[in-house]
Amino acid sequence: MNLNFAVTKTDPSSKGRIGTMQTSRGPIDTPVFMPVGTQATVKTLDPEEVKALGYDIILANTYHLCLRPGHQTIKAMGGLHDFMGWRGSLLTDSGGFQVFSMKDLVKITESGIRFASHLDGSRHDLTPEFAIEVQEALGADIIMALDEMVTPDSSDDYAREASLRSTRWGERCLNARTRSDIALFGITQGGFDEKLRQESAQQIVNLGFDGYAIGGLSVGESKEIMSAMVDVTTPILPEDKPRYLMGVGTPDDLVRCVAQGIDMFDCVMPTRNARNGYLFTSQGRVAIRNAKYAKDESPIDPECDCSTCLRFTRAYLRHLFMAGEILALRLNTIHNLGFYKRRMDKIRDAIHAGELGRWADSLEDQ
Amino acid sequence: MNLNFAVTKTDPSSKGRIGTMQTSRGPIDTPVFMPVGTQATVKTLDPEEVKALGYDIILANTYHLCLRPGHQTIKAMGGLHDFMGWRGSLLTDSGGFQVFSMKDLVKITESGIRFASHLDGSRHDLTPEFAIEVQEALGADIIMALDEMVTPDSSDDYAREASLRSTRWGERCLNARTRSDIALFGITQGGFDEKLRQESAQQIVNLGFDGYAIGGLSVGESKEIMSAMVDVTTPILPEDKPRYLMGVGTPDDLVRCVAQGIDMFDCVMPTRNARNGYLFTSQGRVAIRNAKYAKDESPIDPECDCSTCLRFTRAYLRHLFMAGEILALRLNTIHNLGFYKRRMDKIRDAIHAGELGRWADSLEDQ
Repeated sequence: MNLNFAVTKTDPSSKGRIGTMQTSRGPIDTPVFMPVGTQATVKTLDPEEVKALGYDIILANTYHLCLRPGHQTIKAMGGLHDFMGWRGSLLTDSGGFQVFSMKDLVKITESGIRFASHLDGSRHDLTPEFAIEVQEALGADIIMALDEMVTPDSSDDYAREASLRSTRWGERCLNARTRSDIALFGITQGGFDEKLRQESAQQIVNLGFDGYAIGGLSVGESKEIMSAMVDVTTPILPEDKPRYLMGVGTPDDLVRCVAQGIDMFDCVMPTRNARNGYLFTSQGRVAIRNAKYAKDESPIDPECDCSTCLRFTRAYLRHLFMAGEILALRLNTIHNLGFYKRRMDKIRDAIHAGELGRWADSLEDQ
Repeated sequence: MNLNFAVTKTDPSSKGRIGTMQTSRGPIDTPVFMPVGTQATVKTLDPEEVKALGYDIILANTYHLCLRPGHQTIKAMGGLHDFMGWRGSLLTDSGGFQVFSMKDLVKITESGIRFASHLDGSRHDLTPEFAIEVQEALGADIIMALDEMVTPDSSDDYAREASLRSTRWGERCLNARTRSDIALFGITQGGFDEKLRQESAQQIVNLGFDGYAIGGLSVGESKEIMSAMVDVTTPILPEDKPRYLMGVGTPDDLVRCVAQGIDMFDCVMPTRNARNGYLFTSQGRVAIRNAKYAKDESPIDPECDCSTCLRFTRAYLRHLFMAGEILALRLNTIHNLGFYKRRMDKIRDAIHAGELGRWADSLEDQ
C-alpha cells in the first residue's frame, strides 16, 4: 500500500473530517497544510526547522527541479528526500501549473505541453508520461497527474476541451506509472462551471487514483466561485481517499475549505508573505516595516509560541527587515509557517468539538 | 573589573600565548577569532547558531547601528545584547573604519570626522566623544577608541599626523568614558613605518587602556609589511593585556599573527566568502558553483564536523547556491565559521604542544 488513509472523525456541523495519511515516511494528520519547497528547500529554512514547526509533509515543484539540478541528478543522489535532507513525506506537483504560468511560452497539444525553460530558453515537452517519469525519479511519496488548467477568462468551450483533455492525460499518467510504492493523485478540473466541475470529478474518480485534487482554483476567480466549485466537487470524491485543494489559501480559506470536506492544502502565501515582511497574527496581519514597530518590545504575536516569537521583538525584526538582513526572512518564515500550523491544529480541534461549521460561517467574506 | 585577562600558557617556539578573557557575559578563550555581526546579526545566522559553533564573542559595527536603527533605539530596547538576543560577549568598533571606507564623503579635523550617511546622505560628526557615547549606549563588553587610519599611498607626513591625532583622540576617548563596566581598548596606528608604529604603540600604551589593538593593517599593504608592523608593535604592548589585530585575516594570517603575539582577531572573510560561495576546507578553498560538484555526494570538507557538513552534500549545496536559495548562504556561513573556529582550536593546540612557531614558519607566503 502506497498510502494508507483513514478518516477517524467527522464533524456534525460541517463536511470537515479528521484523518491520518500514512506514507512510508510516517503518519500525517489531516487536514494538513503543506509548506512549499519549490527548489528542494522551503525558502530560507533548513529541514530541521520545518520539522520543528510540526510539519510532516512538504511540497516540491517538479518544473523547477527538472530544469535545475535535473531529476536525473537528484535520482543519482538517492532521490529528493536524501538530496535535501528531508525525512518527512514529500509531494511533487506535475510541473503543469508552473508551465501554464508562463503563458506565452506554452503550446498545448493532445500530446502534452511544449515550453521553453525560464533558465536558458531550451525547449521541453511536458507530456503526461514525462511528468510521471520525472516525479518517479524524484521519488516523492505522493505525485500528481498532469492536468490542464483554465483561467476565469477562458471560454466555456475551451474549459470543456481542457477538462476532457485533463481526464485523458490523467489516464495516460495512470498507465505510465511504474512505481506502486508511490501514490498518484488525479486532478479534477472543470473551470468555473458547476456542471463541468461535476463531470470532471466523476471522470477522474472513475479512473481510480490514490487521492484526488481539485485543480485550477485560486487563480483569480472570486471566493464565491471558488467555494461553489469546491462545494459541487467534494460530494463526488470517494470518502475513503484524501482530497487536496491545490494552491489554497489564506488562513480563512483553510477553515472554510476544510468545512467543505478538504483534507490537504498547499500555498506559497505564508512563506512569500514572510519574505515580503507581512506576518500573520491572532490580531490580524502585521507589516513589519511599519515605523510604529521601531521600538516595540513585544513579539510578533503574543499568542504565538514559534521560535521567532519566543526569542525576538518586533523592534529587532523590523530592524533586520529594513536593513535587508537575510535573517529577517528566515525568522518571518518561521513565524508564518508556525501560524499556519497552529491554524490547522485549531481546525482539527474545532472538528473534535463539532464547531467547525460555526467557525466557517462566522468568517467575513474576503 | 571590566575585563579580566590572564595569560595561562606561552609557546617556547613563538610569541604565541593562550589566555582567558573574562567579561560579565562569561569567559573567552584566547587567541580568539570574532565573527562580524555588522548590523546586529552575523549575516544569515541566528544567535543560537553562532553560539553552537563555539563562539563566545562577536563584533558589531557602531557606524551601521548608529545610523540604523540608532543607538538610542537599541539602548531603549535594553542594549545590543538584548536587542539581538546574543548572550555571549560583544565588541563594537568605533565606527571610524566604516567612515574611512567612504573616502570622498569624509572630512577630518582635529575635532573628529564629518561624514554623510550612506542611507540618506545626512551629515554626522563622529568625534571621539560621540564614538564613546554611541558605544556605551549600545552597551558592548569591549568598546574601541576612535582612531584615524592611513592607507599605503598616504605620505609619511600624513601618516605621522594621523598617528599623533589618533593618540590625542585616544586620550579624549578615555576622558569621555562614563561606564567603568565596559572595557575600552586603545588602537595603535603608525601607517607602514616601523618607527612610527613603535612611537604610536608607546603613546597609546602610556595612556593606559584595558586592551590594545593594532589598527590600519590588512588595508592593501603586502603580507611582509603587515608582518613587520605587527612584529615591532607587540613587544611594546603590555603582556598582561589582550592584543587585538583588527580586520585580519586569512586562516594562515591567524597562525602567523598568533605566533607574533596577537590574542584577538575579526574579519569578514569567512562570512563574506561564504555568501559568495567560497568555502574553506582542509584541502584548500572550494568554489561551490564549480560544475564538478554537481553530483558530488561528499560533504564540503570530510574533516569538518559543522552542522552543514554533517547533513548536506556538495551537490545539494551547489544546487542551492546556483538556484539563488537563501539557505545556501546560511549553510555556507556555518561551514566557514566552523572552519575558523577549528583553526583557532588548532592554534591553541599548537601552543600547548610548543609547535606554533614551526607551523607558522611552514606556511607559504601568500
